[in-house]
Amino acid sequence: MDAMLADILDAVEPQRGTGRVADYIPALAAVDPNKLGIAFADDEGKVHGAGDCDEPFSIQSISKVFTLALALERVGGALWEKVGREPSGSAFNSIIQLEHERGIPRNPLINPGAIVVTDHLVAGRTAEAAIGDLLGLLRAQARDDRVHVDEAVAESEAETGSRNRALGWFMKSFGTLSNDVEAVLGAYFRQCAVAMSCRQLARAGLFLAFDGRDPETGKEVIAWHRARRINSVMMLCGHYDNSGEFAFRVGLPGKSGVGGGILAVAPGHGAVAVWSPGLNAAGTSAAGAAALEALVERTGWSVFV
Amino acid sequence: MDAMLADILDAVEPQRGTGRVADYIPALAAVDPNKLGIAFADDEGKVHGAGDCDEPFSIQSISKVFTLALALERVGGALWEKVGREPSGSAFNSIIQLEHERGIPRNPLINPGAIVVTDHLVAGRTAEAAIGDLLGLLRAQARDDRVHVDEAVAESEAETGSRNRALGWFMKSFGTLSNDVEAVLGAYFRQCAVAMSCRQLARAGLFLAFDGRDPETGKEVIAWHRARRINSVMMLCGHYDNSGEFAFRVGLPGKSGVGGGILAVAPGHGAVAVWSPGLNAAGTSAAGAAALEALVERTGWSVFV
Amino acid sequence: MDAMLADILDAVEPQRGTGRVADYIPALAAVDPNKLGIAFADDEGKVHGAGDCDEPFSIQSISKVFTLALALERVGGALWEKVGREPSGSAFNSIIQLEHERGIPRNPLINPGAIVVTDHLVAGRTAEAAIGDLLGLLRAQARDDRVHVDEAVAESEAETGSRNRALGWFMKSFGTLSNDVEAVLGAYFRQCAVAMSCRQLARAGLFLAFDGRDPETGKEVIAWHRARRINSVMMLCGHYDNSGEFAFRVGLPGKSGVGGGILAVAPGHGAVAVWSPGLNAAGTSAAGAAALEALVERTGWSVFV
Amino acid sequence: MDAMLADILDAVEPQRGTGRVADYIPALAAVDPNKLGIAFADDEGKVHGAGDCDEPFSIQSISKVFTLALALERVGGALWEKVGREPSGSAFNSIIQLEHERGIPRNPLINPGAIVVTDHLVAGRTAEAAIGDLLGLLRAQARDDRVHVDEAVAESEAETGSRNRALGWFMKSFGTLSNDVEAVLGAYFRQCAVAMSCRQLARAGLFLAFDGRDPETGKEVIAWHRARRINSVMMLCGHYDNSGEFAFRVGLPGKSGVGGGILAVAPGHGAVAVWSPGLNAAGTSAAGAAALEALVERTGWSVFV
Repeated sequence: MDAMLADILDAVEPQRGTGRVADYIPALAAVDPNKLGIAFADDEGKVHGAGDCDEPFSIQSISKVFTLALALERVGGALWEKVGREPSGSAFNSIIQLEHERGIPRNPLINPGAIVVTDHLVAGRTAEAAIGDLLGLLRAQARDDRVHVDEAVAESEAETGSRNRALGWFMKSFGTLSNDVEAVLGAYFRQCAVAMSCRQLARAGLFLAFDGRDPETGKEVIAWHRARRINSVMMLCGHYDNSGEFAFRVGLPGKSGVGGGILAVAPGHGAVAVWSPGLNAAGTSAAGAAALEALVERTGWSVFV
Repeated sequence: MDAMLADILDAVEPQRGTGRVADYIPALAAVDPNKLGIAFADDEGKVHGAGDCDEPFSIQSISKVFTLALALERVGGALWEKVGREPSGSAFNSIIQLEHERGIPRNPLINPGAIVVTDHLVAGRTAEAAIGDLLGLLRAQARDDRVHVDEAVAESEAETGSRNRALGWFMKSFGTLSNDVEAVLGAYFRQCAVAMSCRQLARAGLFLAFDGRDPETGKEVIAWHRARRINSVMMLCGHYDNSGEFAFRVGLPGKSGVGGGILAVAPGHGAVAVWSPGLNAAGTSAAGAAALEALVERTGWSVFV
Repeated sequence: MDAMLADILDAVEPQRGTGRVADYIPALAAVDPNKLGIAFADDEGKVHGAGDCDEPFSIQSISKVFTLALALERVGGALWEKVGREPSGSAFNSIIQLEHERGIPRNPLINPGAIVVTDHLVAGRTAEAAIGDLLGLLRAQARDDRVHVDEAVAESEAETGSRNRALGWFMKSFGTLSNDVEAVLGAYFRQCAVAMSCRQLARAGLFLAFDGRDPETGKEVIAWHRARRINSVMMLCGHYDNSGEFAFRVGLPGKSGVGGGILAVAPGHGAVAVWSPGLNAAGTSAAGAAALEALVERTGWSVFV
Repeated sequence: MDAMLADILDAVEPQRGTGRVADYIPALAAVDPNKLGIAFADDEGKVHGAGDCDEPFSIQSISKVFTLALALERVGGALWEKVGREPSGSAFNSIIQLEHERGIPRNPLINPGAIVVTDHLVAGRTAEAAIGDLLGLLRAQARDDRVHVDEAVAESEAETGSRNRALGWFMKSFGTLSNDVEAVLGAYFRQCAVAMSCRQLARAGLFLAFDGRDPETGKEVIAWHRARRINSVMMLCGHYDNSGEFAFRVGLPGKSGVGGGILAVAPGHGAVAVWSPGLNAAGTSAAGAAALEALVERTGWSVFV
């Protein structure tokens, strides 16, 4: 596997540095566009890596997958009263659908849906406690206590977060959010700012490839039907308006972040994390998606064959 | 497998007759709501069935899968210049997205997208020839020459087809359609009116489960990458605004029709067709979806585990 | 008044030839962009003119005002069951609002609304009879039997009318239109192709400035409350998404056409018609609107002062 | 005139108490639905009244007319860089148009547009100073220093203002607002809570009927072209999605508020204020609109005749 990962990085070398680095916050804009890393956590929990696989990056929207897992465990099916499970057919931060559908976001992997998820995570406790919970899950599954919130990024998110504030207040006006909007957003901005390496991320997402269980210990991390739900939501909605393209090219449930990371799940095989900051027009890492495509070509893990 | 299929129909017996039969054309409204059939075509091409699996029904939108296969073989990737590959986030016959995206439908499994596909099928020949091509594919793969167009249904479709005419003319105004609108719609109305039994349909769709090859003969029906594309489009867009729910509950690429049929593909295992006329709110067969869910529970074929 | 009209044309001379001539049909694209005419019909029915005020041009959407008058006389308030009286907030040929509001167009001065109006005009008779009725009204009020349909333009409209066909079929699918769609559109395309000079047009619209009466004869052309309704609809909706700007700059009820004509009504004073083919970004005659602005500056006829 | 006003209230007596009182804040919901008042300020500045014309009510959105006047005087035409002048074709608090048109509201009389206007009023000073300016204008023109902000209403507005906060943050994300969002909204909530009687309101709006001048003193309150702009905006956009109906029925520029008040301007004649808390489906005072209709019937002041 280690050789294959190195080979994959060689194959996508021409795409290293292509695409456009997210620049809406200075901390992201400053990242070296030539970074490229990949890691694979296998069915025994072992993590293989290549390239910049040990360097932490801002996981951004990939955190939505883990907060969804936590919220489902916390409130169960009641979560779906306030957020849907369908593709949105629009951009990640569109507010139009929210007005048409009376404040209920289409799915938990677009910004408004993830804000609803966070609303459930902060209920009955502080935003700090909620983020502590998230870091707890990530550290335990990553087997690494260094997973942390990048405070500079979190601060930038909060400063430039007008659009997310609009989404929050808009949903509040429909009664979708139960908690204080600023508290929810405070937690949301911090979850987006979690920094992880490819190795940490692949290991942390491994339970999604094994029906909710950690394949190393056999212990349930989340219920099997929730892992399955999360995978299906990632497959249909994980890349905003580029999900269909990703499903075709890669054929695995996945979630991208504007920091250039992608987490993909190969059911029964393992979890992969890639990182390369240059984004394509739809906001997915260009070299990262190419690396995943190369991986699936070599392994035949597409769920569609 | 035969026993399992019978067992599945027993399990969904409580849902037989539930839901609402499509009534926009008389020929569909007259169908007995208690019909319930299932068939499975396995990895050797053998077809197993239970219930009303030999009775032909109107496959309606399921035909979109086969016209897509034909059009991809006919014009290749050029097809994607006039139709997208992403979920629509709206109803099957919505025209709003078309105005926003300048006449390019979101995907080939919603009505406007399927009309674009048909536009490519009729190019350079008559509508009759195009439909002949479709029937040729279906008969050959179903191993049954009785597959036919129900002329009464086709006529009803044409008579009540104002909305589809609007979609056609709207796309024409953007230059999306190249051929005579009425000719394209004439073929479109006839393809919706194809009548097939569950047995015929499961066998006809079998190549999609084996990377484009007929597993019985080993011969390529369509190129492997096209089969994969079709499966991913079915997974993301096959059930209109209910695709996310179907992906979670069933976890297989599939396509539903308002006649109450559903075709589902279990990659590497086979193809399933179910039929029960009562539809849920999103237009998918209620008992049919339940039967597929029961099948996946028993077989573990969800692509997400 | 004749001197004032000449003076106005002098004042707008710098704008003669500016803007963009409509080019969606060849017959319109061929018009000399330097044409500029103005005519005023006064409170005694006398018509004053300057510039190219005797040359017929394609009145296009200005015909919507007269078909509205005829339909209101024909079916009365029942017309408003199928078309609204509010500004649309969108382009003249948008179909989005129609889907949101279930096939009922916002007002009779956008294309779909005018098609509804025409649907009422053709009810129970042929399209030819309906157009005959329109020509009858125009000729009688213009005091000129030369008013006619430009058949070349009508044919071009029909050939390039995909968008209007889409609007027609879409409304048909909601039950908004009662008659055969092609028959309604046939009449609609012909009404758009009526050719009139500024002199004819100003005289023909005069009754709108005098509460529905011809000020020369004192005879009622349409009921007073209908004249008032038409004026208010022109004020709020007469220039598509430029109506607010026109209301501010000119301050008179008016209706523009892509042929470069504008009819404006000065209640209690008279009716004005201007013509200059170059259109601004919103589809209103650039020099024409400037001429009306100059007229109101000189006369103080804005209804807002 | 006094007799006519009393006669008008008699005529609309059957509609007293009809409609639905706004209930989104307790302070408004508590208002007696049977209140009914009217006042007319004439061309000499004299105010005539009938019914509950001396009782203060919450003017709500009618304040948008006066903040618009102040902002135009303060920043001139630069205001129009951040807000349009066209009807919106949608509800008063819709956010959809804002996303489509990149954060620029359609006109200053819908909520987002009025928030933009307030953004200009608070620039370079405190929200208190901006509100002081508004009260200064209203008191001076009303000739009554008792005009004030109802603090209980203002507090309720702020507490229930999630939707307006969403509009504010959304526009902030596009750069439409220059100042601190909470500061702008603080002023906005207070301007909505201004309490005035019909007498005060009619007198305060009188300058709009006389080209920006106070007819009693002859002094310019605002520039003539701004008064005209405000009148045209009121005519086209003053009643949200009911503006066309109001234009037809009343035929005067006007602005309604959910407190049940309406200010209407009869150019060259005077200004009218009516108040009755029951609202029609579009949010306009039912008895109030009827009273204005009765006034125009008796006076013939519709601008469309």
